[in-house]
Amino acid sequence: MPGSGKSLLSDILKERGYTVISMSGVLRKRYEKEAKIGEKLMDFAKRMREIYGDGVVARLCIEEVSPKLNKIAFDGVRSLSEVEEFKRLGEPIIIAVHSPPSVRYNRIISRMRPDDSKNISELRLRDMDELKFGIGGVIAMADYIIVNDSTIDEFKKRADELLSRILK
Amino acid sequence: MPGSGKSLLSDILKERGYTVISMSGVLRKRYEKEAKIGEKLMDFAKRMREIYGDGVVARLCIEEVSPKLNKIAFDGVRSLSEVEEFKRLGEPIIIAVHSPPSVRYNRIISRMRPDDSKNISELRLRDMDELKFGIGGVIAMADYIIVNDSTIDEFKKRADELLSRILK
Repeated sequence: MPGSGKSLLSDILKERGYTVISMSGVLRKRYEKEAKIGEKLMDFAKRMREIYGDGVVARLCIEEVSPKLNKIAFDGVRSLSEVEEFKRLGEPIIIAVHSPPSVRYNRIISRMRPDDSKNISELRLRDMDELKFGIGGVIAMADYIIVNDSTIDEFKKRADELLSRILK
Repeated sequence: MPGSGKSLLSDILKERGYTVISMSGVLRKRYEKEAKIGEKLMDFAKRMREIYGDGVVARLCIEEVSPKLNKIAFDGVRSLSEVEEFKRLGEPIIIAVHSPPSVRYNRIISRMRPDDSKNISELRLRDMDELKFGIGGVIAMADYIIVNDSTIDEFKKRADELLSRILK
């Protein structure tokens, strides 16, 4: 979910030699080429799924994977349909990062990226949009959840402990 | 999700003086009176939601709440629509219990309740049914998640730590 801290996990995976493919990055590249005038990224994402199916962003990401890579992570999975697509590459491990909504909202309001919403009710609506893609199903079916409700250092500690336990 | 260990959390809440209302218990009472011949509990649950709306089980649970109670927990929330209903009683705190699917499936197979599925593919289908109710959204939007991927004692320790921190 937005503001949960999953990009921190990507950083840690990169330090461990993983190639991290940002799903929103791949989507954004397409958006910059193909969006309609005035279309928002989220609306473009919905339209892409309507045209090409729920797994489309995952399939575009798979296109970016070179066959010689063997440590790959995809950052920003939104639905179990995407997880199904990734099974073409092998058996994926799903790691979810969870933060309480109140904590996520505070983080987003303080970081203020250009496409971030500015108030709580907008943030809640954005959450509901994310949930419509099916992200809740991915979290529910995750193999591991890292709870990120404390400091960055504590999160890094938790992530490192988990990754050391589950990755070779 | 089935097999995650949420009834353990209910037990701990009861020890702390909470009245725990089992949502599936309330649903089952209704099912025993009103189900069609041969209708499964899950199909009855779907039909109830179609007739009375997604929040119906929550509304039936609220009926069971005596006005003099002030420490109440609802076990088995399935959707954010139900959470909305509970807001009539006050601001609810959502605590999700998460276990990896592989761990949940092993637990269910070894406990074998009468309505438990018997093999992994049936269990996965049941998970997908639960997700259709919107349980993923509840987990994604939870205020707290307790990860139950270890022993019962470890789970109790984690739950006690959390509850001591967040409940008066």
